Amino acid sequence: MTADLFRVEKDFLGERKIPLQAYYGIQTIRAVENFPITGYKLDGQLIKALAMVKMAAAKANRKVGRLNEKMEQAIVQATQEIIGGQWHDQFIVDPIQGGAGTSINMNANEVIANRSIELLGGNKGDYFQLSPNTHVNMSQSTNDAFPTAVRIAILSLLDQLLTAMHELEQMFHKKAQEFDHVIKMGRTHLQDAVPIRLGQEFQAYRRVLKRDLERLERTRQRLYEVNLGATAVGTGLNADPTYINHVVRLLGEISGYPLTKATDLVDATQNTDVYAEVSSALKVCMISMSKVANDLRLMASGPRTGFGEIRLPARQPGSSIMPGKVNPVMCELINQVAFQVMGNDHTVSLAAAAGQLELNVMEPVLVFNLMQSLNIMSRSFTVFNQYCLAGIEANIERCKQYVEQSVGVITALNPHLGYEIAARIAQEALQTGRSARELCLEHGVLTEEELDVILDPFEMTYPGIAGGSLRDKD
Amino acid sequence: MTADLFRVEKDFLGERKIPLQAYYGIQTIRAVENFPITGYKLDGQLIKALAMVKMAAAKANRKVGRLNEKMEQAIVQATQEIIGGQWHDQFIVDPIQGGAGTSINMNANEVIANRSIELLGGNKGDYFQLSPNTHVNMSQSTNDAFPTAVRIAILSLLDQLLTAMHELEQMFHKKAQEFDHVIKMGRTHLQDAVPIRLGQEFQAYRRVLKRDLERLERTRQRLYEVNLGATAVGTGLNADPTYINHVVRLLGEISGYPLTKATDLVDATQNTDVYAEVSSALKVCMISMSKVANDLRLMASGPRTGFGEIRLPARQPGSSIMPGKVNPVMCELINQVAFQVMGNDHTVSLAAAAGQLELNVMEPVLVFNLMQSLNIMSRSFTVFNQYCLAGIEANIERCKQYVEQSVGVITALNPHLGYEIAARIAQEALQTGRSARELCLEHGVLTEEELDVILDPFEMTYPGIAGGSLRDKD
Amino acid sequence: MTADLFRVEKDFLGERKIPLQAYYGIQTIRAVENFPITGYKLDGQLIKALAMVKMAAAKANRKVGRLNEKMEQAIVQATQEIIGGQWHDQFIVDPIQGGAGTSINMNANEVIANRSIELLGGNKGDYFQLSPNTHVNMSQSTNDAFPTAVRIAILSLLDQLLTAMHELEQMFHKKAQEFDHVIKMGRTHLQDAVPIRLGQEFQAYRRVLKRDLERLERTRQRLYEVNLGATAVGTGLNADPTYINHVVRLLGEISGYPLTKATDLVDATQNTDVYAEVSSALKVCMISMSKVANDLRLMASGPRTGFGEIRLPARQPGSSIMPGKVNPVMCELINQVAFQVMGNDHTVSLAAAAGQLELNVMEPVLVFNLMQSLNIMSRSFTVFNQYCLAGIEANIERCKQYVEQSVGVITALNPHLGYEIAARIAQEALQTGRSARELCLEHGVLTEEELDVILDPFEMTYPGIAGGSLRDKD
Amino acid sequence: MTADLFRVEKDFLGERKIPLQAYYGIQTIRAVENFPITGYKLDGQLIKALAMVKMAAAKANRKVGRLNEKMEQAIVQATQEIIGGQWHDQFIVDPIQGGAGTSINMNANEVIANRSIELLGGNKGDYFQLSPNTHVNMSQSTNDAFPTAVRIAILSLLDQLLTAMHELEQMFHKKAQEFDHVIKMGRTHLQDAVPIRLGQEFQAYRRVLKRDLERLERTRQRLYEVNLGATAVGTGLNADPTYINHVVRLLGEISGYPLTKATDLVDATQNTDVYAEVSSALKVCMISMSKVANDLRLMASGPRTGFGEIRLPARQPGSSIMPGKVNPVMCELINQVAFQVMGNDHTVSLAAAAGQLELNVMEPVLVFNLMQSLNIMSRSFTVFNQYCLAGIEANIERCKQYVEQSVGVITALNPHLGYEIAARIAQEALQTGRSARELCLEHGVLTEEELDVILDPFEMTYPGIAGGSLRDKD
Repeated sequence: MTADLFRVEKDFLGERKIPLQAYYGIQTIRAVENFPITGYKLDGQLIKALAMVKMAAAKANRKVGRLNEKMEQAIVQATQEIIGGQWHDQFIVDPIQGGAGTSINMNANEVIANRSIELLGGNKGDYFQLSPNTHVNMSQSTNDAFPTAVRIAILSLLDQLLTAMHELEQMFHKKAQEFDHVIKMGRTHLQDAVPIRLGQEFQAYRRVLKRDLERLERTRQRLYEVNLGATAVGTGLNADPTYINHVVRLLGEISGYPLTKATDLVDATQNTDVYAEVSSALKVCMISMSKVANDLRLMASGPRTGFGEIRLPARQPGSSIMPGKVNPVMCELINQVAFQVMGNDHTVSLAAAAGQLELNVMEPVLVFNLMQSLNIMSRSFTVFNQYCLAGIEANIERCKQYVEQSVGVITALNPHLGYEIAARIAQEALQTGRSARELCLEHGVLTEEELDVILDPFEMTYPGIAGGSLRDKD
Repeated sequence: MTADLFRVEKDFLGERKIPLQAYYGIQTIRAVENFPITGYKLDGQLIKALAMVKMAAAKANRKVGRLNEKMEQAIVQATQEIIGGQWHDQFIVDPIQGGAGTSINMNANEVIANRSIELLGGNKGDYFQLSPNTHVNMSQSTNDAFPTAVRIAILSLLDQLLTAMHELEQMFHKKAQEFDHVIKMGRTHLQDAVPIRLGQEFQAYRRVLKRDLERLERTRQRLYEVNLGATAVGTGLNADPTYINHVVRLLGEISGYPLTKATDLVDATQNTDVYAEVSSALKVCMISMSKVANDLRLMASGPRTGFGEIRLPARQPGSSIMPGKVNPVMCELINQVAFQVMGNDHTVSLAAAAGQLELNVMEPVLVFNLMQSLNIMSRSFTVFNQYCLAGIEANIERCKQYVEQSVGVITALNPHLGYEIAARIAQEALQTGRSARELCLEHGVLTEEELDVILDPFEMTYPGIAGGSLRDKD
Repeated sequence: MTADLFRVEKDFLGERKIPLQAYYGIQTIRAVENFPITGYKLDGQLIKALAMVKMAAAKANRKVGRLNEKMEQAIVQATQEIIGGQWHDQFIVDPIQGGAGTSINMNANEVIANRSIELLGGNKGDYFQLSPNTHVNMSQSTNDAFPTAVRIAILSLLDQLLTAMHELEQMFHKKAQEFDHVIKMGRTHLQDAVPIRLGQEFQAYRRVLKRDLERLERTRQRLYEVNLGATAVGTGLNADPTYINHVVRLLGEISGYPLTKATDLVDATQNTDVYAEVSSALKVCMISMSKVANDLRLMASGPRTGFGEIRLPARQPGSSIMPGKVNPVMCELINQVAFQVMGNDHTVSLAAAAGQLELNVMEPVLVFNLMQSLNIMSRSFTVFNQYCLAGIEANIERCKQYVEQSVGVITALNPHLGYEIAARIAQEALQTGRSARELCLEHGVLTEEELDVILDPFEMTYPGIAGGSLRDKD
Repeated sequence: MTADLFRVEKDFLGERKIPLQAYYGIQTIRAVENFPITGYKLDGQLIKALAMVKMAAAKANRKVGRLNEKMEQAIVQATQEIIGGQWHDQFIVDPIQGGAGTSINMNANEVIANRSIELLGGNKGDYFQLSPNTHVNMSQSTNDAFPTAVRIAILSLLDQLLTAMHELEQMFHKKAQEFDHVIKMGRTHLQDAVPIRLGQEFQAYRRVLKRDLERLERTRQRLYEVNLGATAVGTGLNADPTYINHVVRLLGEISGYPLTKATDLVDATQNTDVYAEVSSALKVCMISMSKVANDLRLMASGPRTGFGEIRLPARQPGSSIMPGKVNPVMCELINQVAFQVMGNDHTVSLAAAAGQLELNVMEPVLVFNLMQSLNIMSRSFTVFNQYCLAGIEANIERCKQYVEQSVGVITALNPHLGYEIAARIAQEALQTGRSARELCLEHGVLTEEELDVILDPFEMTYPGIAGGSLRDKD
């Protein structure tokens, strides 16, 4: 490579060569040198959100007269392009990095500055024309620009997730209705308990997901409060108060979210509890979904030597050695996403607790984990819904057999025979392998007609004493 | 010991000797044999809440005609005594135990039954007179009675915590006002940034605590929904629908909480997401409070070789070897409670994710950790507030000196001199140890009058460009 | 209460009334005021270990001539009594407390001082005769005395645990032999795979436990290194070098452990990685044991509508509503202990990471959690072994039926028929409900004699191609 | 696109179009459809390790006569190319996926099969010539091939990490020697304690890292044990015993690691405790390194209003708003990597605990997190070492001043004056701001000559009573 394929940029620590075609600059290069950690890309939503912040700042700075019109228009166009999906390959800093997001912010400043310079007809790197720090970052600090962008990115990922959750909830409802007539054995402690309908189980899965939806919906209100205008430590030093009001309003328009200025900018700059709150809500959701996935895998266990109460759609051959084997891979995916989200929440908690005085410098790793959780939840819910949940079938015959074989139905005899006699019949049934009905008849404690009513499993799945009317007659 | 100091009780698995004076019975003894784990006592609030559930059930069973008046009145009196604090020493099962709380429930059933028998003039153990299972546990299962009691116990511990948090929040506010005039250096990355007021820092501590208060307040609504009447798996088998409505209303009256029947009893019996939600909110609160404790310890570091910006009340001699040493023990307590609560939340999450089908049998360990978190937070907040926060003093002189020595104030020169010249002065100041003011005068870039306005640290703690009017004149 | 039931003690922060009969003093009272947190007692092993440290220090201080003989003898007797189990009720500080263990150390110093004074014929509180700080704590700091005591206490709890684990491992071995002939279906992904022997499964449980034993054994070496003599920050200031050598040797004799002085006392005073290592090893052990408990619960699921491959001993009636129901409570206990230990490990990690400069002040909460993990593991393993594992029975008939019904045995046909034909037979078997054997005969792909050899499930549980000799003939 | 740019592949669930140029096949496509989760690539070391396993299997199958020579040679060349870095872009399945690694294994089988076919002169997709399942996967199951590859990949990443840790340890040692003469104040509880040398602090950082090195070294022994030959559930069904011995030996030669066959293949197939052990050791290492990073950030705090005891190399401008600000970004990186590794360990633990019966199907997420931890630790240690640690400078003057100002040195007066008088002088010093030396002289308790010896801070950093000889004279 010859020297003229590079330009040279300087800062107060020295100089670096930058590839001539690159829109990023010296600060980005420094960060790439310092943080070659995960090798992953920044999330596209975060890049877009940063561009929105920079666009809003440029417009607001124009309004208060600190930025001239030409510069403003160049920055607006450059950021518009990024929001549209261009230049994302120029964001090359690692998501895990020292420094509170400074390098991400500076990467954005440099790309926008150089693209703006180009739009103004200049050469990349000619920062006298338009400077990443002085103009793109005008009236901002990393400490307000970055967290504000993070809020918008999270809101956008949260929207995707809520859509996926809503679809999932609808599908649980649909399956609950489909399976409402399927009587099966309820189990507690993995031991036979009393009858339940498969539809009731799916309805329960839906209900808990609905609560998760509500929990996540609630966190949006908090995410709408941004600290843009706080500058370095929340005191707003060097940010014109008129600018602050403009910039938040403008960013609201650009992003489409009803953003407001945080009540207390010092608080909003140093505390990351809102991210911890969102991450916790994601964790709670995955706790429940992991339980659902476990239930489905258990009910689908078999085909011959397991529960075999439901059948999951076959998505891929499950074994390179066992012919015809199909595994519950979509459920296993949900479990694994749950483990990842729970681990991510741990990282988020650790990072959130590590704030010191006016700032939490651990935001990059926090944001990386939170955004990953949001992404993998959306994506896994979508495929789980489509490729697994939608196609689940009940093995009605097997479910029915279990209820008939079960000893747990004896519970319904309690109010009629008393716990002691019922327990004795239960013991005898278990030891002899005979049914409760048979033994009741043999011992003459109930008639066939009475047993028909009392042992009707369908009735047992509704509140009340099965065959209650019989008892009342006694 | 002679044989007549014992009575013998039986169940379908065999018999056990019970001390004659004991109110507990064979199921309790079995549980004590099976689970000699932590050696801790059950929480008093949980014992009381269980008694409330049993009282409500007795009254409701009376109303629907399943329990006679004498029995009801005995049970009501027995439970009243327990709510009043009596007989707690008879609850001897370990908080960590197999079986979804069955042993806790049965311990309660037995104590209440035997005390009721005594009140009816009988001998303890004479379960023909009044049976733990048939009468005290009538229309209930562990799977609805225990979780319902847990909700009430948590609500009561949450009340205590919210009170302690509210007092803490008030005190932060008081100190924020007290310190509103104290100018100090703000720090980001532990590096000198720009001035801030100590009052602003305490106000930020208050704000995050207020959000925690709101987060916890919100969880109450969910806790009001109980699954009493669900019996074994949520279908309500063997519980009269009229009974279900009565029992929830009665329990609301007894407990003083506006309880409602859960919308979906199957869901409410198998899912423990609400506990996970409460525990997560506690965790988020302690993340913030741990950060506050760290800040206080850092600002109080010294007395000679640390920050020394504030002084914490001396609570105890801090060293057996270093004379006169006093340590920030109350802050260290908050940090440690944070670690405990974060670990407890992990246990709660693991337990909550381990539900299977119709029940989560891991509730005992979940409840033990959640209640411990609530308790240690209340107690540590109370002593922290009283013994530490209330007595914090600012070292106004030290704070002021730091601001005067600091280079970070150069930030305020940016809008007047541009970032480049400001940066050069900053570098020179750091290398020579001289002040920004001095260097500005020497280089003739600003006059003394201008510097008085621009470098006024108090003005720097408010939004806007310090000396903005000067700039406008330019 | 009248004034003379109290004595008054003073320190440089003021004075406090102490109950006349109390062996503890003002520092203990201060700690009780400051830290009313968990309400739990200190662990008895920790109290004994602290007494051992104080005894060793007294003897070593006598040897180097800093303590006179009368004082030494009194301290030795007082500590001997504590090691023997006396005076533990005088240790009243809370296990969770600010201050790096200072309050625990001072509680010990005061109890030992006052008991020594009493032995010398004086009155409690007369510290001119013998002082908690000057004499009992001579040549020590909390920062070396407390961590050293912790090591000894942990070693002693670890001994108990290793014994319990060893017994468990033996029992797994015994059951593995007992079940070596029981053929059952192996399952992967909860789907039918290929045959395995129940004994092989129990052997696998044993093997992983053996690795856990080795992992924990290895940590002992590290625990033998103590920092006694380090005093405040590890530099050994105010501790005579001769004393240091004496005291470690003496403590080794008293405790019975081969203790050595840590290579680097500064390191040993500030780092708590060894505790984190022990706690991690406990966590890894419980991860495996939780898996074992899950397997047992799954194999014991039923009795009618689950796997039903094994029967667990009935330990207690499992339901207050379902007659005859028995739950796998001892396994559920193991799961819950696993959750607790995993949560405790989280707390330990957080506390260990919170060391700063010369000390980790978060040791109290760390030690509390680590000791709790050790205790609950020992105790739960003991009851699990005795009350569950020892009595497990195989349902040989059920296991055999499953193998016969299963389609997974078709895997053994692969080398004979090729994967494609085997897969086609598997599909047909699943769709028609017929057996592999039957279909092979029908399609004429293998003879009855060949099938007898190839489909022998017992042979399938050993490495190699079932019916390999047949294939070779082809 | 026209139809002929695709080939069609079939399995027992249906067919899929595959891009003509693709080396992967239908199973890979199915997995890509099912698991569009993280968007990350598989780790290159894992791809290489899988190729090694497949090469070893081909060679061993040739040796026992199950694979012909032409096929063997094609597979050997294809895998050799992959080990050399070719065709990695053909591994397109997501690291987080359902199914125990089946899709990763099948992706490898397909790429190797198609490349082998090509080498044999055939067309990709012509599996009659050479089949992914029958030939590349011969004598294997995902359940042994995948975990074996994982072991090798981890060993290789561990090698890199151990090298980085060794370099770091050397550098700590170098700095410890460089700073051995720098006297500074030791601090406990962030409060002034007694003097220490900066070199002692760096030596302590080195010691804990050395223990981490040992802990990680120890895990290698376990990683050498592979379960290749176990096939589906560890019984070795369909794997010739001769093959098993050959394949492990051959894989040892290919990989360069002294691999051995696991003692118990059933155990080795279902248990993942060894991964949990490695991950825990990584966590413990990061706990210590996070503490070191915190210490460095604290000692480097300032430049004017913090501790200012050391200077970290300036790596990048730290603020877009505060001129001249430089932040401790490399230390902040270490903290964040610590949080990530601790979160990853949580995920690893959850996945490891989720094994069921003969297999742990959650390995993909486990492996993804474990490998990520290994990678980010190696990389961050390397840059931290080079860009931060190597260039740290001591602010000798500041360190000295602190010692001189400090009151903590009074500790050295204890043995000479007694704790009480020393404490009184300490109090007076703190209240008046005067030095201990001055006050001792004023009160006439020690002479100037005595104070010179006793208060020599350098002597205080070694064990023993400073000025001990003076005392002896008394």
